[in-house]
This record gives sequence, structure tokens and C-alpha cells, in this order.
Amino acid sequence: MGRELYLYNTLTRSKELFEPVEPPYVGMYVCGPTVYSDSHLGHARPAITYDILYRYLMHLGYKVRYVRNITDVGHLENEADDSGEDRITKKARQENIEPMEVVQRYMNSFHRSMDLLNTLQPSIEPRATGHIVEQQEMISTIIEEGFAYEENGSVYFDVEKYNRSYPYGILSGRVLDEMKANSRVLEGQDEKHSPFDFALWKKASQAHIMKWSSPWSNGFPGWHLECSVMSTKYLGDVFDIHGGGMDLIFPHHECEIAQSTAANGKPSVRYWVHNNMITINGQKMARSLGNFITLDQLFSGNHPLLERAYSPMTIRFFILQAQYRGTVDFSNEALLSASLGLQKLMTAVKTLNSLKGSERSSIDISAIKEKCYEAMSDDLNTPVVLAHLFDGVRMINLVNDGRETLSEADLDDLKELFRTFVFDILGLKEEESSGNDLLSGVVEMVLNMRQEAKARKDWATSDRIRDELLKLGVNVKDRKDGFDWEIKH
Amino acid sequence: MGRELYLYNTLTRSKELFEPVEPPYVGMYVCGPTVYSDSHLGHARPAITYDILYRYLMHLGYKVRYVRNITDVGHLENEADDSGEDRITKKARQENIEPMEVVQRYMNSFHRSMDLLNTLQPSIEPRATGHIVEQQEMISTIIEEGFAYEENGSVYFDVEKYNRSYPYGILSGRVLDEMKANSRVLEGQDEKHSPFDFALWKKASQAHIMKWSSPWSNGFPGWHLECSVMSTKYLGDVFDIHGGGMDLIFPHHECEIAQSTAANGKPSVRYWVHNNMITINGQKMARSLGNFITLDQLFSGNHPLLERAYSPMTIRFFILQAQYRGTVDFSNEALLSASLGLQKLMTAVKTLNSLKGSERSSIDISAIKEKCYEAMSDDLNTPVVLAHLFDGVRMINLVNDGRETLSEADLDDLKELFRTFVFDILGLKEEESSGNDLLSGVVEMVLNMRQEAKARKDWATSDRIRDELLKLGVNVKDRKDGFDWEIKH
Repeated sequence: MGRELYLYNTLTRSKELFEPVEPPYVGMYVCGPTVYSDSHLGHARPAITYDILYRYLMHLGYKVRYVRNITDVGHLENEADDSGEDRITKKARQENIEPMEVVQRYMNSFHRSMDLLNTLQPSIEPRATGHIVEQQEMISTIIEEGFAYEENGSVYFDVEKYNRSYPYGILSGRVLDEMKANSRVLEGQDEKHSPFDFALWKKASQAHIMKWSSPWSNGFPGWHLECSVMSTKYLGDVFDIHGGGMDLIFPHHECEIAQSTAANGKPSVRYWVHNNMITINGQKMARSLGNFITLDQLFSGNHPLLERAYSPMTIRFFILQAQYRGTVDFSNEALLSASLGLQKLMTAVKTLNSLKGSERSSIDISAIKEKCYEAMSDDLNTPVVLAHLFDGVRMINLVNDGRETLSEADLDDLKELFRTFVFDILGLKEEESSGNDLLSGVVEMVLNMRQEAKARKDWATSDRIRDELLKLGVNVKDRKDGFDWEIKH
Repeated sequence: MGRELYLYNTLTRSKELFEPVEPPYVGMYVCGPTVYSDSHLGHARPAITYDILYRYLMHLGYKVRYVRNITDVGHLENEADDSGEDRITKKARQENIEPMEVVQRYMNSFHRSMDLLNTLQPSIEPRATGHIVEQQEMISTIIEEGFAYEENGSVYFDVEKYNRSYPYGILSGRVLDEMKANSRVLEGQDEKHSPFDFALWKKASQAHIMKWSSPWSNGFPGWHLECSVMSTKYLGDVFDIHGGGMDLIFPHHECEIAQSTAANGKPSVRYWVHNNMITINGQKMARSLGNFITLDQLFSGNHPLLERAYSPMTIRFFILQAQYRGTVDFSNEALLSASLGLQKLMTAVKTLNSLKGSERSSIDISAIKEKCYEAMSDDLNTPVVLAHLFDGVRMINLVNDGRETLSEADLDDLKELFRTFVFDILGLKEEESSGNDLLSGVVEMVLNMRQEAKARKDWATSDRIRDELLKLGVNVKDRKDGFDWEIKH
């Protein structure tokens, strides 16, 4: 923890120095997916954003407990419409299976996609259905504290009453009186005392499949409740970081703050971090617009909008090219360019590992490392980190071409820098299989033997090695001072 | 479902024709792991056994809902000792983390191993902590039915009372009166009315971390309860198949039957299927015997008892070489032989795909398919299936050698047969990645250069190649007529 980290806190609308409650421990909670359909582009951005934050915190020496939930209770598609089917039940009916099978299938699919994107697994992945008892306990506490009421077997959070004791709207900047002034609501049509109240527990209709017994009714918890419950259960009443997409600021996170504060008398989250959304060719992604792209479709290229397949690391690199609070627009041109950028970076890493040190350095690499840390510590400014790394790439190529030199010590520093930032912090990886290190080793060994053959003018051996490698699918290109090689695809 | 399937039912001690309650649907519940340490050999056998049953049922046309639980509540290491720590809590204390982090880590590790063994993911993987409400409901029902009593915040199942209404011991063949006659128990030392009673709910000590509120106490469910609850929740009051290891017959499955019968007035399982255990070099596997081998150790060869690494498919093939109710003894010799057998089978599959059809067949392959189905339908007799497939291998090799012929139609049938049994039903797969073929090619090329160096008595080059390969992790062993090589793990 020698280095400082500044994070933009949505709560204060400013970049703040990150100081955990109890260093070196850090508690981080991130809103995970509702598992009722395949993972899509919208899941990739928060997953990668908080993966980077997790990796960087660990790199800085913090011991991080990273909790990301799985929403496996089907919440109503339209909260205003009590009779509506929930998403998971609807999917279950469409596929003619049990809701928990829907949950399992798409949870597995989410995990596969996350592995492919090289995101680290969270320390704990709690499921909403795994915390029904705890959710009921929090409801009871909120009722006892006077901030919720029961109506016909359902329990609602009393926003107006809460707003008289605590500031409702502190995260989103919404003011309840203004919200009321701007809304036209027909009275008496709802169990809720006010249209801004929200459900903590919903009585289930006969047709509703996912339901549990409770002191109020056979029913199910409200959407916002699980995060208040599971974050504090695993991270304590007050914890460091809560992450999620900007679209969750209101109502989800606002309601989380209200619930936790109503139950514990104080807010639980110190730094609220929100990633921006993605667009596709400038448009919001939506099933109705025909531009809804799942991650599997991206990886396979199997979608009318995609000109080709884009590998998981290309997607990761592409997302890192923007700071997490900026927008990201997906297009074939942008993804192709990301793919080329990634390739250039990875080729440079390989070149770097084959460079030989000189007696002295003709260029100064010492500034790159500090600049990379500065950018990371400035609210995870990954595009700036990449820009500095590409300065390094330029230097690597100049040294490789013999136009500049680096000392052994500088070379070691540069290798360490790339290892740290490219692999550990940005979480990029080689996309070829693991047998490849050994393969590279053996190929380099053969090619060194070929260099020696050339040195002693044994052209027969030299040519034969080149030809045999070619037959095996390895292309050798001679350079003035050595060789390059690549596997033909 | 044109074909019949006979399964050995532990309940009736006989092979029975399998007839589901509601064809074409089949409900199958299998006891999964307690996730507090790395997956080991003992997990591989049931996973593969029920994977084969799942695959075969689907192949026969059934629509199977396969439920396998995750035990993520820490149960006491010694049920008799109420003060004892549970396994998950103990591990959490040892690793200085929260119990749910222990659960997450080892659940992830289990899933990775299961993927490597090519077992299909179950339809639903319910977790014990995800069904606390339902477990409390079943306890209430059992109390209402008069088969459980509360004592000091804990609830116990009343085995004697149950035994007066229903036959306790029907699965294991144990008779309560005999059990009582053979045991010496000091009275008055326990909350239980009888030593054969078992906990449905345990009041938690202050130190116990994983606990939930309940009508009886802050506590946790008894070990046997989750399976009664989760099996019937997802498969209905009466369902088709319940699987697990033979070591679970008593007390776990016996207690499951008692709980479900006490709650619903009838037993819930129609076919009880049990796989036999594994031994290592003739001994039971136990941490205390130093022969406890995790799956990761098997796959990497990183254990004093292992002479080399064994691939996941070698393990799978090895387990399939025994019928699931027979014992399996792991040894280096047996695994090596399995590895060679698998290789022979897979090579034959490749050869088969390259064979050309003749005008007529000189051998009769028509019987193999029927025999394979007969063996599978005879209580999943996989070793007999493999024997018949190796008859096919022999024929493939004879045809390849030009000593026999097969017509185009017979060839197609044989290909279909191998595809169906080797890949779909037995769930084997090719393990080499394409990178490995290239690696082999380059290593062989270098070693051929070494042979030439030796031929011209250029010992320096010969030694150098051997030494450099060794440094890269490739072990070369000279033979009289050539060389062997292997990758060190």
C-alpha cells in the first residue's frame, strides 16, 4: 500500500483518496447478473471493470474480499404490475423447465464467459435464494425501526417516512418532493401508500413458482433487498466499495442505501463506484432493436451485425481502451482495431523477452513505470496506461531493430513492467494454448542451432531446418541479426 | 425408449427394469460433495458413474432432470460431539477466511475438475444454504407428524417412534432392535432420547459461524435433511432415481428415507443406486494413510505415490473399466494400462474415419452394437461395453491392414457405433490440443538431428541437444534402436 489510489465516488461526485475502513483489508461488493438469459456485452463491462479494480487493489497489497451476487430470484419485469410474470418464471415457461434449471443453465453460461474474459473469480458469489432467512430478518428489523409496513401479505418500504429521518436520494441526486411534483399518480390503485415506496416482500400469486414461507405471506423478496443483505453479511455493516453499472444508481442502489440505513442507522457503503454503459454502433443495446449481442455470439462471430469473431481478449482490450466512466461504442471497425492493438502489444512482449542487453541504454525508460501507476491510481485510467505501454512497445521495437539500445538492468525493468501491467493488472493473456511455452522453447533451440549452422556456412543444415519447420507449420523469417518465426494458421 | 434398462436397486437388492413414474421424464438426485477441500479420487467415481447414467438415459430418449447438491453447510466432524467444530468452519479458521470463501473456493475447484473429467453439468445444483427455509418447513412438518422432538433449541428425529409406524432400516438392512442390542450407550449424556436419533436442527454454539434464525434456535440444519428437502423440491414427492456412494447408505440415505416418509407418509425414491468405493494400492484412501490423492495431483503427477501424471480421460477410462458396483483399485500399473487402452481406442477411432469401404464385408460387425446396448442396459456394465468396442478395434485394425474388408454401409454403421458409445455414452474425448502435435513434431525433428549427430560420432552436439531439451523440461531416454521422450511434470 505504498501507492495511493483515487476513485470517483458517485456519492460525493468527486475523485477521493481511497482509504479502507480496516487496512490492509478491503471489502468490495459488486452487483452481478440476473441469470435468466445468456451473458451479453452489457455483462462484460462491469465484470472487467471490477476485475481490474480487484487486481489493482491486490497488486497494491490489499487483502480483498470480493463479493459478487447472483440474482436467482425472478423479479417482476414491471414492478408496477403486480400480476406480471417474473423473468425467470417466464423463461422457464417458455423453455418448459423448472425455474431453477433456468438459473443453473445461465449461471453456468455466465461463469464460462467470465473465465474466457480472464476475470478472476470473486471470493464469494452469494445467491439471492441462498439468503431468504437473512432477507426476512432485515425486513423484520426495518419494520421494527418503523420504516416499512405490511399490506395484504406484502411489505413495503416507506420512503416518505425514511426521508423525514434520512436523506433519500443522496446517491442519485433526486429529491423526493420534486419527484412527487413531477409525477401524476392515481391514488388508491395500489397497496403502496406512495408510488415511491418499494417492495421488501411480495405476496406471491398462486401461479408464482419461486416463493417461500414468511411471517407475512408465501412470497418472495423485493429486488433491492438481496444486495443490502448479502453485502453486509459478508463484508460487515460498513464496508469499502460497492460497484455496479450506472443504470443501477436509481432506483436499485438508492433503495439499497435506504434499506441498509433504515436497518442499521447508518449507510453501509463508503465508496460507490459506477461503470458507464456500452452502445452498439451508437445505439443503446436492446432486444427490440435487433442489436442485442451475447458474448458467445461475439466470440463466434455468429450475429448479423458482426463481420467476424472477436476473441475474449480482444473484447477485454477493447473495454480497457476506455476509462470505465466513459462510454464505449461497439462497432466492427473499433473491435478490429482493438484486435490489431492487442496483437501489437503481445508481439512486443515476445520480442521484449528475446532482446539482448547492451552495455548502456540509449533511451530512457524510467518514466514509463511511474506514469502507468499514476494513470491506474487516477481512477483506473486504463486507456492512459495502455498509451504508456505503447510508448514502451515503440522502444522495444527500436531496440529490436538495432536503432536503440537498452542495458541489461533497464531490460529487466521493462520486462517486469510489462509483466506487471499487461498480465497482472490489466489481466490480458496469450490466447494460445499452454503447451506453447515449451513449444517456443524447442523452436528457438532449433533455430539457434540453425544460426550456428549458418555461421559455419553449413547451408545444407540451415536450409533443411527451415524446410522441416515449414512442413510442420512453422514459418521462419531471417533477419539481419537473427530470425523471427510464427506458426501458420 | 425403445430399449429397456435394468438397474440394481439397493432397496430390493435386485436388478429391476427401470420404469419412470412419468415417462419420458426422469428425475435423478445424486449426493454431491461437501466443499471444504480439493476434489479427490473419491469424487471422481460417483461423478462419472452418474454422468454415464445421465448420458445413457438421455440417449434412450428420456428427458432427465439431474439434480446434484452442494453441501455448503459445515456439518460436525463428529456428530456425537456437539462441541466439535464443523469442517467448513475449521478450514476457514485454518485459512483465516470467512466460511463462505472456503465454500466458494472448493466449489469452483470441484467444478473445474468435473469439467476436465468431461462430466455433464447437472440440470440443477442446489446448495444446502440456499434451502434453509424449506428445511425448516420440513422439520415443522415432521414435528407435526409426531416424529421429531425439540430439546434445548435442537430438534431430533425420533427413530424409535418412526420405527413403530414405518420400517426403519429398509435400505441398509439394519434392524433397530439388533442395533440397540449391539451398542453400549451411557444414558443421560445427550439431548437425544435415543442414540439412534439424529439431528434435524442443531442449536449453534456462540462460536459457530454458519447459523440461521429458526423457531427453535439460532442454529443449522442436520446433515441428512438437505437431501430430503432438495430432492423432493425439484423432483416431486416421489421421484425415480437417487444415487450416491455405498458409504452413504447408512446412516445418510437411511435417514433421508425416514425423513421423507415421516413428512410425506410415503418414501420418495423408487430406485436407489449406489456406486462402490475406490482403493489405492489395495488400501482405503485416507489422509492419515498418506495415500490421499486429489484430482489436481493426479492430473499433474504431483504426489509421491504417482509415477507420472494421468490425464482426466485416463482416469475416466480407468473408472469405466469396472462396473460401478465393483471395487476399483488405483495403482500406477493399472492407470498406465488404462492410458494405453484409451490410446489404442482413440487411435482406432481415427483409423476408422480414414478407412475406405470395399464392395463387400469379409467380417460381421452387426453383433457389436446389440452387445454394447445389452451391456449398458444390464446395470451400466461399462467394462463389457469396452470389451465389445475392442472387438471393433481389432476389426478396424484388420481392415486397415488390408486383411479384412468392410462394405461402405458396414463402415458407416461402425462409425456411428463408435461415435455413439465412445463419445456420447461413455463420454470420452480426444485430449490432445493441436499445439501438442506441433510440439511433438518439433521435438522429434530435434531428436532425429541428434541421432544423426550420434551416427557421425559428434557426441558434443548429441549431448548438448539432450541437455538443452532437459532444461526445457523434455526428458530423453536413449533406446538401442532410437529414443523415447516425455515431458516432465
